[in-house]
Amino acid sequence: MSKPKILILGAGYGGLMTAKGLQKGLSYNEAEVTLVNQNPYHYVTTKLHEPAAGTLHHDYTRVPISSVLDERKVRFVQDRVTAVDREKKVVTLENSNEGLAYDYLVMAMGSAPETFGIQGLLENAYFIRNINSVRMIREHIEYQFSQYHLKGERQDLVTIVVGGAGFTGIEFVGELVDRIPQLCRDYDIPQNKVRLVNVEAAPTALPGFDKDLVEYATNYLESRGVEFKIGIPIESCSPEGVVLKGGEEVKAATVVWTGGVRGNKVVEESGVETMRGRVKVDEFLRAPGHEDIFVIGDSSLIINEEIDRPYPPTAQMATQQGEWLGRNLPLLMRGGDVKPYEFDMKGTLASLGRNEAIGMVGTKKMFGSTPAFLKRANDLRWFYKLGGISMVLRKGKL
Amino acid sequence: MSKPKILILGAGYGGLMTAKGLQKGLSYNEAEVTLVNQNPYHYVTTKLHEPAAGTLHHDYTRVPISSVLDERKVRFVQDRVTAVDREKKVVTLENSNEGLAYDYLVMAMGSAPETFGIQGLLENAYFIRNINSVRMIREHIEYQFSQYHLKGERQDLVTIVVGGAGFTGIEFVGELVDRIPQLCRDYDIPQNKVRLVNVEAAPTALPGFDKDLVEYATNYLESRGVEFKIGIPIESCSPEGVVLKGGEEVKAATVVWTGGVRGNKVVEESGVETMRGRVKVDEFLRAPGHEDIFVIGDSSLIINEEIDRPYPPTAQMATQQGEWLGRNLPLLMRGGDVKPYEFDMKGTLASLGRNEAIGMVGTKKMFGSTPAFLKRANDLRWFYKLGGISMVLRKGKL
Repeated sequence: MSKPKILILGAGYGGLMTAKGLQKGLSYNEAEVTLVNQNPYHYVTTKLHEPAAGTLHHDYTRVPISSVLDERKVRFVQDRVTAVDREKKVVTLENSNEGLAYDYLVMAMGSAPETFGIQGLLENAYFIRNINSVRMIREHIEYQFSQYHLKGERQDLVTIVVGGAGFTGIEFVGELVDRIPQLCRDYDIPQNKVRLVNVEAAPTALPGFDKDLVEYATNYLESRGVEFKIGIPIESCSPEGVVLKGGEEVKAATVVWTGGVRGNKVVEESGVETMRGRVKVDEFLRAPGHEDIFVIGDSSLIINEEIDRPYPPTAQMATQQGEWLGRNLPLLMRGGDVKPYEFDMKGTLASLGRNEAIGMVGTKKMFGSTPAFLKRANDLRWFYKLGGISMVLRKGKL
Repeated sequence: MSKPKILILGAGYGGLMTAKGLQKGLSYNEAEVTLVNQNPYHYVTTKLHEPAAGTLHHDYTRVPISSVLDERKVRFVQDRVTAVDREKKVVTLENSNEGLAYDYLVMAMGSAPETFGIQGLLENAYFIRNINSVRMIREHIEYQFSQYHLKGERQDLVTIVVGGAGFTGIEFVGELVDRIPQLCRDYDIPQNKVRLVNVEAAPTALPGFDKDLVEYATNYLESRGVEFKIGIPIESCSPEGVVLKGGEEVKAATVVWTGGVRGNKVVEESGVETMRGRVKVDEFLRAPGHEDIFVIGDSSLIINEEIDRPYPPTAQMATQQGEWLGRNLPLLMRGGDVKPYEFDMKGTLASLGRNEAIGMVGTKKMFGSTPAFLKRANDLRWFYKLGGISMVLRKGKL
């Protein structure tokens, strides 16, 4: 009898923790584990707003997969997954004629931007998605600033619209207020010429956050020059900028959309049941009706029973799911008793640039430099999980 | 009787040396000296290929004018000159309703790109002209590289065409071969994907240079991956790249034109006699028929009697002319005897990136790292002329 094949799609928080757990928990020759990922590196999604703004080099937000996994225990395939065939139990890849067969499939492929059908957004806005997209955002912004004096000091060149004032939007805006003074110095642009406009359709910035924290964050950012347009949806986006509901036009050479995510397209098209691309998983993180398909991370959906609404997709959740699955998949395979997965919400920290942050740790509200420090410490914790102290030393910046 | 007014237009090599000379050589209350310049800083034109390629920050190629001149002796006006009225002896400015009157005018306004009527070049190519233009070139190139993986690895995004293999073209290409490996590392692009194409209409690269030096330079650059297309004019330029004579199309997101310069437009339109925008000055550096108008630097033209052709416009010539004028204008004003200006050709050094160069010093040919060192030492010499040791320490990078 051949060994069962475990196939993990995606080397984000969830996929990587699953692979690390299996590498530790499986007995010799108990199963064949393969990890597929588009890039040879893992990137730290929760830090991507920093290289996007240009405040941190992108190499501090990625880690070679080879430095995290033991290649004798987990086979790594660098490729892009194009489809999942549930009948044949095969995954097809972009650059290989042969698919990869599986007995157990772990879909941990993250999310995709949700543009809510806003006209022109997908074509003209930038998205904080991965290493490729954030270094392009950084360069795009800098390129616009570099043209300012040569193109008649056009206002739109130094206007940045951030769509969405949720977690990512606010964190990105926070980095930009740190970055803009540097850019202004470098391109001889008076700082008061730069416009940074944060647009949010919901009636509040940081929906779901405590009111005091929201107030602290928006007051701080406003004091640094951010213009908030809250409760105002973007109606359309073009190369010239955005048009807001009510007709106001904001001419901007840079529009970055952070307003929402949905599940990965491959998951949506795999035929398992999804809601806006996310799979409402059972207590063992399985797609409904599929004993052999696990979905974790941003593509999974779990209801917070307390408020009867889905938990937002977070790195915290993806990491915990990956750890749970890495530990429990061997037990499930062996037919043992397994305690259902439960999300343990540790807290939430949103940075506002380097030295400011807001957050809830347990039930405690935090403001200012303390949560900013905790946030950075938390980044180090992730590098520690990935590769111990040596990884912290290589990639960590406290 | 009011003091005579000396008006210097331009704070390049020539204008700045004139101002420094006058500041030293004029007696107290002998004349009123005004310097007009578009920017509050002087930039080191001979180094601009470095920030254009991104190998040196542009702040190392500029110096605040206030740090060079004594404001009690030379009045500085930051503005752009729009016209010279020789009849009224007044210069008009962009941002001031009042013009500036002069008794003696020094036109030291540098050059403008000469595109020889090549279709689309002015609109679509980039030019190594000033701080604004070179930091835009740097950002443009980096922005194209940043898009490579997101836009289907399009070849044109990582193709750079440099038009012109003269002095500036070769020096810029030399910096690019140093810069490209860094860019490739930063954007995960295999280095063999990048194309760097240097096109020259003349039958040789570096026209006017010694044959052995030309061969050394082109061999070295070819060994670093440069494709030369020598003896082939560019026929047209578009946002997609260039079309060469004979029909070959080179698709390139970046086209930088270094193929020629002409005199400044204000000089051309001032009504003094010009040839391709340059004024053939008399032995006292005056415009023909004008006792009160001096023209120095790239807008001036002096014939090299030995070969009966004009000297090419260089920083060396502009500096010497400025020094001569700063020393001799007081004498001319006083009606004293003045020895005519003569160009003293010290030599020529062309860098090929940081550690390679070619050059003639006197009649000696030089190759490799020695002229590269001399070239950098020469840059320091210029900073020393401008502001002594403290300026060398602030701006020099040996």
